[in-house]
Amino acid sequence: MIDLRSDTVTKPTQEMRLAMFEAEVGDDVYGEDPTVNKLEEIAAHVLGKEAALFVTSGTQGNQLAVLAQTSPGDEIIMERDSHLFYYEGGAASALAGVQMRTIKGIGGAFSLDSLKRAIRSDDIHFPDTSLICLENTHNRAGGRAIPYQQMRSVYETASSFEVKVHLDGARLFNAAAALGCSAEDLASCSDTVSLCLSKGLGAPAGSVLAGSAETIKKARKWRKRLGGGMRQTGILAAPGIIAITKMAERLTEDHIHAKMLAEGIREIHGLSVVNEVDTNIVLVDVSALNQTNGHILEALKKEGILAVAFGEDVIRFTTHYDVSESDIQQTLQKINNILKIQRA
Amino acid sequence: MIDLRSDTVTKPTQEMRLAMFEAEVGDDVYGEDPTVNKLEEIAAHVLGKEAALFVTSGTQGNQLAVLAQTSPGDEIIMERDSHLFYYEGGAASALAGVQMRTIKGIGGAFSLDSLKRAIRSDDIHFPDTSLICLENTHNRAGGRAIPYQQMRSVYETASSFEVKVHLDGARLFNAAAALGCSAEDLASCSDTVSLCLSKGLGAPAGSVLAGSAETIKKARKWRKRLGGGMRQTGILAAPGIIAITKMAERLTEDHIHAKMLAEGIREIHGLSVVNEVDTNIVLVDVSALNQTNGHILEALKKEGILAVAFGEDVIRFTTHYDVSESDIQQTLQKINNILKIQRA
Amino acid sequence: MIDLRSDTVTKPTQEMRLAMFEAEVGDDVYGEDPTVNKLEEIAAHVLGKEAALFVTSGTQGNQLAVLAQTSPGDEIIMERDSHLFYYEGGAASALAGVQMRTIKGIGGAFSLDSLKRAIRSDDIHFPDTSLICLENTHNRAGGRAIPYQQMRSVYETASSFEVKVHLDGARLFNAAAALGCSAEDLASCSDTVSLCLSKGLGAPAGSVLAGSAETIKKARKWRKRLGGGMRQTGILAAPGIIAITKMAERLTEDHIHAKMLAEGIREIHGLSVVNEVDTNIVLVDVSALNQTNGHILEALKKEGILAVAFGEDVIRFTTHYDVSESDIQQTLQKINNILKIQRA
Amino acid sequence: MIDLRSDTVTKPTQEMRLAMFEAEVGDDVYGEDPTVNKLEEIAAHVLGKEAALFVTSGTQGNQLAVLAQTSPGDEIIMERDSHLFYYEGGAASALAGVQMRTIKGIGGAFSLDSLKRAIRSDDIHFPDTSLICLENTHNRAGGRAIPYQQMRSVYETASSFEVKVHLDGARLFNAAAALGCSAEDLASCSDTVSLCLSKGLGAPAGSVLAGSAETIKKARKWRKRLGGGMRQTGILAAPGIIAITKMAERLTEDHIHAKMLAEGIREIHGLSVVNEVDTNIVLVDVSALNQTNGHILEALKKEGILAVAFGEDVIRFTTHYDVSESDIQQTLQKINNILKIQRA
Repeated sequence: MIDLRSDTVTKPTQEMRLAMFEAEVGDDVYGEDPTVNKLEEIAAHVLGKEAALFVTSGTQGNQLAVLAQTSPGDEIIMERDSHLFYYEGGAASALAGVQMRTIKGIGGAFSLDSLKRAIRSDDIHFPDTSLICLENTHNRAGGRAIPYQQMRSVYETASSFEVKVHLDGARLFNAAAALGCSAEDLASCSDTVSLCLSKGLGAPAGSVLAGSAETIKKARKWRKRLGGGMRQTGILAAPGIIAITKMAERLTEDHIHAKMLAEGIREIHGLSVVNEVDTNIVLVDVSALNQTNGHILEALKKEGILAVAFGEDVIRFTTHYDVSESDIQQTLQKINNILKIQRA
Repeated sequence: MIDLRSDTVTKPTQEMRLAMFEAEVGDDVYGEDPTVNKLEEIAAHVLGKEAALFVTSGTQGNQLAVLAQTSPGDEIIMERDSHLFYYEGGAASALAGVQMRTIKGIGGAFSLDSLKRAIRSDDIHFPDTSLICLENTHNRAGGRAIPYQQMRSVYETASSFEVKVHLDGARLFNAAAALGCSAEDLASCSDTVSLCLSKGLGAPAGSVLAGSAETIKKARKWRKRLGGGMRQTGILAAPGIIAITKMAERLTEDHIHAKMLAEGIREIHGLSVVNEVDTNIVLVDVSALNQTNGHILEALKKEGILAVAFGEDVIRFTTHYDVSESDIQQTLQKINNILKIQRA
Repeated sequence: MIDLRSDTVTKPTQEMRLAMFEAEVGDDVYGEDPTVNKLEEIAAHVLGKEAALFVTSGTQGNQLAVLAQTSPGDEIIMERDSHLFYYEGGAASALAGVQMRTIKGIGGAFSLDSLKRAIRSDDIHFPDTSLICLENTHNRAGGRAIPYQQMRSVYETASSFEVKVHLDGARLFNAAAALGCSAEDLASCSDTVSLCLSKGLGAPAGSVLAGSAETIKKARKWRKRLGGGMRQTGILAAPGIIAITKMAERLTEDHIHAKMLAEGIREIHGLSVVNEVDTNIVLVDVSALNQTNGHILEALKKEGILAVAFGEDVIRFTTHYDVSESDIQQTLQKINNILKIQRA
Repeated sequence: MIDLRSDTVTKPTQEMRLAMFEAEVGDDVYGEDPTVNKLEEIAAHVLGKEAALFVTSGTQGNQLAVLAQTSPGDEIIMERDSHLFYYEGGAASALAGVQMRTIKGIGGAFSLDSLKRAIRSDDIHFPDTSLICLENTHNRAGGRAIPYQQMRSVYETASSFEVKVHLDGARLFNAAAALGCSAEDLASCSDTVSLCLSKGLGAPAGSVLAGSAETIKKARKWRKRLGGGMRQTGILAAPGIIAITKMAERLTEDHIHAKMLAEGIREIHGLSVVNEVDTNIVLVDVSALNQTNGHILEALKKEGILAVAFGEDVIRFTTHYDVSESDIQQTLQKINNILKIQRA
């Protein structure tokens, strides 16, 4: 099977497994797990923040950022297709009691004008705007990398309104690799930033949330309430350290593979690539085939290719550590085969 | 002063004041206020629902509809500029823990296609869609009356997905008058409907929420939690009965006045009317005057005319019981005077 | 019928009805109702606080005090039988997300020792203690008036832990009358205080919440979210002004009536009074009669006497404006008659 | 260091580390991690429930049980010193919006009478009682094992009121070992049960929640919202399987060690054991020493003994896998030494 559904499916490397096996651990609820403490230190350093917190998932990192920086009845602003709005089960409203206001963006980014219009003035009828959430790279926009300058201007605008910024950096290193800057550069355009250890970086599970010491202290208490406080967490922190320190640099490979895939697909009659392939995601419009998404995915699966639906007409392919150049070639060949047979 | 800011500013009529003076009252928390009971019976009848509940405001009616028909973590759908999303302080997320998903509509109504796309499928990442909220007339669309057929098809679509529909009918009688149907006809396209007694209908305060007996029972308990359960509430129910039974029929007058105002404004150089004037609201674009909204509202106030800003470039004028035909003529004349002086 | 169920059943006086009839009103959401503004000013003055807010019920006043002075995940402390814990539908947890910690008190008051033990230390496992709620007079303790000195020491202890105090003063004037001090004296032992206009004070509906200007500003916004912001609220504020300024002084009468009732009951075989009758509430233990509460209440009702159950063995009688000395004599006589017949 | 602070400090065994190293994993969000699926199957079987869910902590298991079986504004009942009320940061109120009502128990168990009095009747003022939470063994009662018959009668009472029961079984296997019954027997007195893999059972992290298939489905969605859905979770599930299948049987050893410790302490002048030592917890009252808890803990630490404060006068010692019989002897000897020196 060539699994192109998501970069979340990557399995831990042998080095990571060994690190887990040998991890020095302690009770993290008492703050005594040396491996967790080391991961949090490294993450804070890499992201240029005062403090960091290991969390069990990207969703938990995002939710803690909201819980630690808003009050119920506030309004938070984000791009219409952002993960926080689209894929987190309505958690920010359910847990933090905040209203989510979405702005339609282009390539995952929204204009400063539309942002300014969305920030509320002081009025008894209005919720207070307290947080803006960015996502870079932006998943549903096709892994688009939002340029540094755009993020910087959002952050400055937000700051001028005394509104905080959270950066959902589930794939922050992909963005940095694509933009040729550092993760820290991008994180500097935010008050808090979350980073996923288990997508392209290959760790089995976990994310980190970084920010000011005060915000991370609040987030730590909320993590306890969400049940995210674990015991000998060093088991997961050990591969996390490898993820951050060693796996980031190889992401460019995934991006090259994605571009190869996109190029190949563009040459196939009936398929079109709908996104700029900045990073490791390829969105393919299959509507010209006049078949349901489910039907096509089923046919791919029979040939050993896994991908996912992205709405009714689009299929998403994601490259990652467990996908090689030869896997890409095979994938293209098999797609070609399927379509030929179907047309025959 | 000619107060065109809102139809909420209407003062109770002499008949209403007398009704309050003479109201037979009891302790409504014990269900013993005969005037409240009568109002709730009349409201349920007029709206064609099993049961109704007196509530202290339109916002409370909307919030109770959400609280009684959703669970935390659900998603509810509404037009982007609806009162529930725009003007209720983020309450549905703060109180009911639901995520609000907005659809951009035209004239306050959204298409069936965009509705269907917004209803979530069953997926561990997604909130469950449990409620659709309509608003008729639609305030921020300029008091637009959404046609019966459009509402009917939304209701049928919603029902086919087992999703409930709430109708924010703050100005439901205005819609009925404009469309030439009954309030009951429109309410039949919803599971719950709220109706404001204190806008065009002139009562000093209060709304009603109507729906199935089971839903209203839940809403009654939530009203207690919100502190909306009052004691000798007959004092407010008495004018409410007059509002529903006697004041609805005269709303057409307000609509005629609004149309007169709109016609007059269209002839004034530099002003344009941006909405279809279906009912009692006129939205005027003043951007061609190159003055701030605040500046223009101030000049109007000096001349004895009150109106409100609607975003940066638009001013809203609302007609109601306390505004006569001659008030409209005066208003037009004074606007003319102000602009002439400014141009001179 | 002699209605001794609660002082909430009092009907508005003729003077109050006239005040409603003549009330000067405006749109309170715009802050323009002169009668509401006057009531809020008077209430703030009488309670010795910077600002006050008209709310639709005592429950709403209490809930706003919690919403304005806590954050979700906090713990708030109160006596085990307090109204906020017992009778408000779990609202403080539902709306404000706070955990309620109860202390068993004596006569409605708890010891400083148990309070100190209940305040949480700083620990990742613990909620933060942010508010202590007092109730004076204390309803379920039988209308007990908690002495000034006791309240003062709670307030000082709370302040030393940087914890706020809210005083549920639904019957604050009863407490003041019983203790021979002013409402302001008692309110000075709290950061916020709510006061019911519609119990012994006889207004048809409504309460006020008073506190610092900043807290009341927050409470006003939360009132909007709860749907407690109304329009021509002067209608209810007008009798409220009479309630505060004229009705407080006559509460001693109700207390005398309650004491007469208690004395009479003590002489009846099979009945015992379980509370110190400080104010207008008499709790009668009927367990020696070997009949269910419901049975006894039914027999009383047939004789024209209304009262309420207070748990399984106790019946509560409450005196108020609409209960005269002769009503008390009649009540005693009828209870005697019922019991004689039953024993015969 | 002999670490008697908690059984949470146990480090994973070599067998567990090897299991992690070799664990077959997949993406659990897609339901594809075979090791997680196996753990959930085993846990459901062992606990006699339809389905089970891996969660990141005992707190998360408890919170999901509340979220899946209550609605905001409900009341849930538990013993006054239960973990859910005492140690979870107020999470049930913050996340699920429920009011917690506590009953003072004896040995961690409350009487049926007090339970019946605490269940609310149907009244507009009251929250609805929807869940009762038991804890067995009961931590703050000193690891007391609540007898099967007592649990059974609570469950039957609850069921007769149509109220659900959740069992916080963080140390359920300790209870089963002490009572000489199976974990399934105890779990049969509940609708949902949580079980901690990382306390006495020694896994590095994680718990399981078991219940009906429908409840676990709801819990799974809420787990996603809390950010407890992880990716290659098999890493943690692998040692969890060993914990459940192999480690439970050795808990009796810890209980013997605890009894040895208690016996030794009872012979030391100035110390008294305050709990029945049913399982692995010994609570020691040190008030007779006239020293602060902190001071004594510090002195112990200097001698290489770690324990924790339990209130002002009590110190808790907990035995576990990493504590041997010789550790107990050493601990007793060192306590003796410290006290002798202090007295000298």
